[in-house]
Amino acid sequence: MTKKVGSQTVKLANPPVLISAAAVVGPMEGQGLLREYFDYIYSDNICGQASFEKAERHMVQNACYLALNKVQKIPKDMDYFLAGDLLNQTTTSNFSAVQLEIPFFGLYGACSTLAESLSLAAMLIDGGFANYILAATSSHNCTSERQYRYPTEYGGQRPPYAQWTVTGAGAAVVAKEGTGPRITCITTGKVVDMGIKDPFNMGAAMAPAAAKTLIQHFCDTGRAPTYYDLIVTGDLGRFGHDLTVQLAVSGGGFDLSQNYQDCGVMIYRPDQDTHSGGSGCGCSAVVTYGYLLKEMAKGTFGKILVVATGALHSPTTFQQGENIPAIAQAVAIEQ
Amino acid sequence: MTKKVGSQTVKLANPPVLISAAAVVGPMEGQGLLREYFDYIYSDNICGQASFEKAERHMVQNACYLALNKVQKIPKDMDYFLAGDLLNQTTTSNFSAVQLEIPFFGLYGACSTLAESLSLAAMLIDGGFANYILAATSSHNCTSERQYRYPTEYGGQRPPYAQWTVTGAGAAVVAKEGTGPRITCITTGKVVDMGIKDPFNMGAAMAPAAAKTLIQHFCDTGRAPTYYDLIVTGDLGRFGHDLTVQLAVSGGGFDLSQNYQDCGVMIYRPDQDTHSGGSGCGCSAVVTYGYLLKEMAKGTFGKILVVATGALHSPTTFQQGENIPAIAQAVAIEQ
Repeated sequence: MTKKVGSQTVKLANPPVLISAAAVVGPMEGQGLLREYFDYIYSDNICGQASFEKAERHMVQNACYLALNKVQKIPKDMDYFLAGDLLNQTTTSNFSAVQLEIPFFGLYGACSTLAESLSLAAMLIDGGFANYILAATSSHNCTSERQYRYPTEYGGQRPPYAQWTVTGAGAAVVAKEGTGPRITCITTGKVVDMGIKDPFNMGAAMAPAAAKTLIQHFCDTGRAPTYYDLIVTGDLGRFGHDLTVQLAVSGGGFDLSQNYQDCGVMIYRPDQDTHSGGSGCGCSAVVTYGYLLKEMAKGTFGKILVVATGALHSPTTFQQGENIPAIAQAVAIEQ
Repeated sequence: MTKKVGSQTVKLANPPVLISAAAVVGPMEGQGLLREYFDYIYSDNICGQASFEKAERHMVQNACYLALNKVQKIPKDMDYFLAGDLLNQTTTSNFSAVQLEIPFFGLYGACSTLAESLSLAAMLIDGGFANYILAATSSHNCTSERQYRYPTEYGGQRPPYAQWTVTGAGAAVVAKEGTGPRITCITTGKVVDMGIKDPFNMGAAMAPAAAKTLIQHFCDTGRAPTYYDLIVTGDLGRFGHDLTVQLAVSGGGFDLSQNYQDCGVMIYRPDQDTHSGGSGCGCSAVVTYGYLLKEMAKGTFGKILVVATGALHSPTTFQQGENIPAIAQAVAIEQ
């Protein structure tokens, strides 16, 4: 007998616990709306390292050790390290795994990696394969923008629907037992391709995937959107958020207007000139591990649904004229 | 109570079954030593597509449908699709997932992805989260070489220890029940960095990771190398194979000289000018899903240990003068 509920959702028999988490960010995020929630704010983007790539790794390791320290754990206590990032060959995660020396599974789901890592961590623990798993995701504006679009020094003009890749890393310790909110349900997304080709328009590429996974989650679990105190998507930005609200109604008759926000909209002040909002693996990671879990601990939210969305293209597929497929992974976190 | 045995190994309580698998290859692999074992041999590297990237996707989809067809299954019967490849942002896997429409987890472990996908598939099934999982991995000489090293048209001379990226894709259907060999044990590797910097010398970068995971597997399980009828590494090539034999003795006192081969050495004829042998995610995939499983079905091997190795660098980290970290994931398959 499987633990499946409906066609794409599993219900954890013994919901694993998020016993600790940490979020570290760059200076711009540190001036944003959620600045008081971050565990560490770097004063510049280079983080004292020799390259932006090394800076991103430094942030991941910092987030990992901060999360471990909060529960007096060391890397050796972890059964697995699950991590992913946006760089080619996910080198931020791979190189971070060298220092941590924890049995490692590398993941790639673009910006959906936050929820992908929590999904797999929860299933491996509930399945009896681990007591403790460290999950980490990251992005860095200066490493991502030059890889996916233009070198930041080039100063190319960005369209109004463009988003700003978040400089930040988040890490969580998922455990079989302990104190904290629990991962209760996981809805795993299918990859969808709605014909979007513009690598600046991530919100439009990812919104259909977000709506599809949300609708599937409600159908599979029988829960209404109002079951949750808050539903967040990872990094759709203002345009993608509004599109998702529309698609949830038109595609499934679900009203998200009451309790749905997007991490990309939440993270920056409107006057920070990020256009449509934040994006990147680091966006949902620092908002979830910084703001959301801390507000859950205070009792502000009892039940949240985190839907991390990923645009699954590469510069090569873009240059070859292909569409941008997308995916959304949902994780229900409940007190 | 976890299913852990030692520090890095889990033993599956109800070992999942490899009920079907398929291997498709390019023309060069189709002239190699294992040609009679492949399910489909393409007559050229472009596979009737508009780009080599599309050709690689075509191979993955072909392998997936061939594996499904052998057991009269369709994508809809699968609970999850786990896949990874070598291209930036693992676009081969992501784009293949669009067509398959199966809930998807994208993986990146470089050439270790074959064993990573089987490890996670087996744990998700044994944990009660799925009845059927489709796992696929691929590589393509013409997409990989130009991304990692030089454009193939450039015709750069390769050192004698260089390997040849295999053009091939493999897919397997892992099931809770059914007929076939079973995945019994999984040893998950740690990322190691031994200071190798030469992107042509993958064998030397990955051999220490292979030896480390092998030694750990023997220590965790209490099994001697001779417990297995055959131990294979994924794509170390001739030099990496010999180095692994030495490191297993010096590092753990284990003698691999009797029953250890490397997929990269097995796949090509010595006169095919591939230097040290084959490499790439596709290498271990087509040798395991083509040759090894078919010989297991015939009774040639009863117990095998597949240790897929991955070099976790990127062209960016190489250009920035960094080392090449590596990982090895081991999966025991038994009748």
